[in-house]
Amino acid sequence: MADAAVLLACDWGTTNLRAWTLDGQGAPVAQQDFPLGVSRLAPGEAAQRFEAEVRPALNAQGLPAILCGMVGSNLGWQVVPYADCPAGIEDLAGKLTSVGDNARIVPGLRCEGIAGAPDVMRGEETQILGWLAQHPDRRAGRHVLCHPGTHAKWVLIQDGRIVRFVTAMTGELFAVMSQHSVLRTDAASDDEAAFDAGLVAAGSGDALAARLFTTRARVVGGDADPKGSASYLSGLLIGAEVAATPQLLGARPERVDLLGDAALCERYRRALTRAGIAAETFDGEAAAIAGLFALGAKP
Amino acid sequence: MADAAVLLACDWGTTNLRAWTLDGQGAPVAQQDFPLGVSRLAPGEAAQRFEAEVRPALNAQGLPAILCGMVGSNLGWQVVPYADCPAGIEDLAGKLTSVGDNARIVPGLRCEGIAGAPDVMRGEETQILGWLAQHPDRRAGRHVLCHPGTHAKWVLIQDGRIVRFVTAMTGELFAVMSQHSVLRTDAASDDEAAFDAGLVAAGSGDALAARLFTTRARVVGGDADPKGSASYLSGLLIGAEVAATPQLLGARPERVDLLGDAALCERYRRALTRAGIAAETFDGEAAAIAGLFALGAKP
Repeated sequence: MADAAVLLACDWGTTNLRAWTLDGQGAPVAQQDFPLGVSRLAPGEAAQRFEAEVRPALNAQGLPAILCGMVGSNLGWQVVPYADCPAGIEDLAGKLTSVGDNARIVPGLRCEGIAGAPDVMRGEETQILGWLAQHPDRRAGRHVLCHPGTHAKWVLIQDGRIVRFVTAMTGELFAVMSQHSVLRTDAASDDEAAFDAGLVAAGSGDALAARLFTTRARVVGGDADPKGSASYLSGLLIGAEVAATPQLLGARPERVDLLGDAALCERYRRALTRAGIAAETFDGEAAAIAGLFALGAKP
Repeated sequence: MADAAVLLACDWGTTNLRAWTLDGQGAPVAQQDFPLGVSRLAPGEAAQRFEAEVRPALNAQGLPAILCGMVGSNLGWQVVPYADCPAGIEDLAGKLTSVGDNARIVPGLRCEGIAGAPDVMRGEETQILGWLAQHPDRRAGRHVLCHPGTHAKWVLIQDGRIVRFVTAMTGELFAVMSQHSVLRTDAASDDEAAFDAGLVAAGSGDALAARLFTTRARVVGGDADPKGSASYLSGLLIGAEVAATPQLLGARPERVDLLGDAALCERYRRALTRAGIAAETFDGEAAAIAGLFALGAKP
């Protein structure tokens, strides 16, 4: 007989809601995804859909629930104010916001960003602090972590707390340029040679608007195969990000930990390695579960 | 009585066709715009629309015609091969391609671009060489010119010829990011303070994907007014372009000549001035007419 579930844990983002029930050791008992991302909800709808759909589907009526991500934004269930950096798991545990019937939302993080603007995250903080809970060796000293995605996060960790971070909207740039610009590409075939050519074209990460145009010019003015354009564009954008973004956190790191989707992390690992930076990849889902359990299991 | 027209001159681009009849001194006799940009035409349609609509509207039946721009691309009337840099007005005059009944198309230019990719232009070369015909003082020595637009061109001119250029797709980045990304903005109100804040946020032009996110973070994580976001984004993109692109042509220039739309050139002038680079603005339409006349008036 499976261990009894003691917690309902949800990573509730912009496009999807991923839910797990967890046992007393934080291991998943059941898991289900819901197309209930906050961008798909009407105002005020989150609470009702959660009680009517998520709890019953996971047989989690009555369990304490812990939620992280955009559910705490103005599009979600209730606005949960950002917590300020530096922040570790204990800092966030003290700032959960109770909503509905026995549910709590994890605050996002805010820090001083570049050019005097603040920077923000909602959801990644739970993964990152969960990953730190899983990896005691990363809780001492100074580490740079990258969480790739639509809005990639570059994070400076010092003694187990998130000190500072920078968001790079590389994934979104790739999406809008390959869907809506003159760089439109048909198939996103995976062409390693074209990806590597993009990494080279990224140079030192400056003059991106000029480097982007090479995606088109190499086809219309040269003899590059347009089938490789999506991979080239991906290499160019990730290469430019890797070349210049970590320096915004301070010095260029010797090693970067990658946390997130395995296929996307592999692209970053390739770019980092080529730039002479060691990289190791860690699973984002396991980290999310660990973070939600660490936060939700406290009374 | 007005001087008789001797030439039909057309700047035939992606979205529009601008046509003038010119007298024996190159002065406009009549002018009309047509919604016949090559992106709006069916394959093979250019010749027929030109004879049936453009010539009659300008009373230009029988006149020699000179056409520049995307009309010479695979979307236009006929593919006219690119001419290679370096190229001056005499070089282009020797490479016109005859089409239809007494019409000639100016070739675009190609040069070695960045990262081993070629770079290309179609249409701007005629404006730039026309501008050189208008300004004898710019025909000696070395000059850097910028032609802002959807695909801005940074051009190195040496002794009256275009030696090399780099395309920066800044205008297109602005359009797709402000229409299709999380940086969507409602009104493109003209907010000088926000534009200047964007120039500062552009830094040295590196890590653009990270700097772009400040457009959103300054609103959701700070207290910036979202009404200024379009101007901020414009300042950020133009600032990043100005900071890093001219170096791709060689050394950072002390002066840049701006050629094109007056309002857009003014934004670039503001960015260049702030970066310590002197800038002077010149009218793109007058330059196009001068270039088409110089090329079309030769037999």
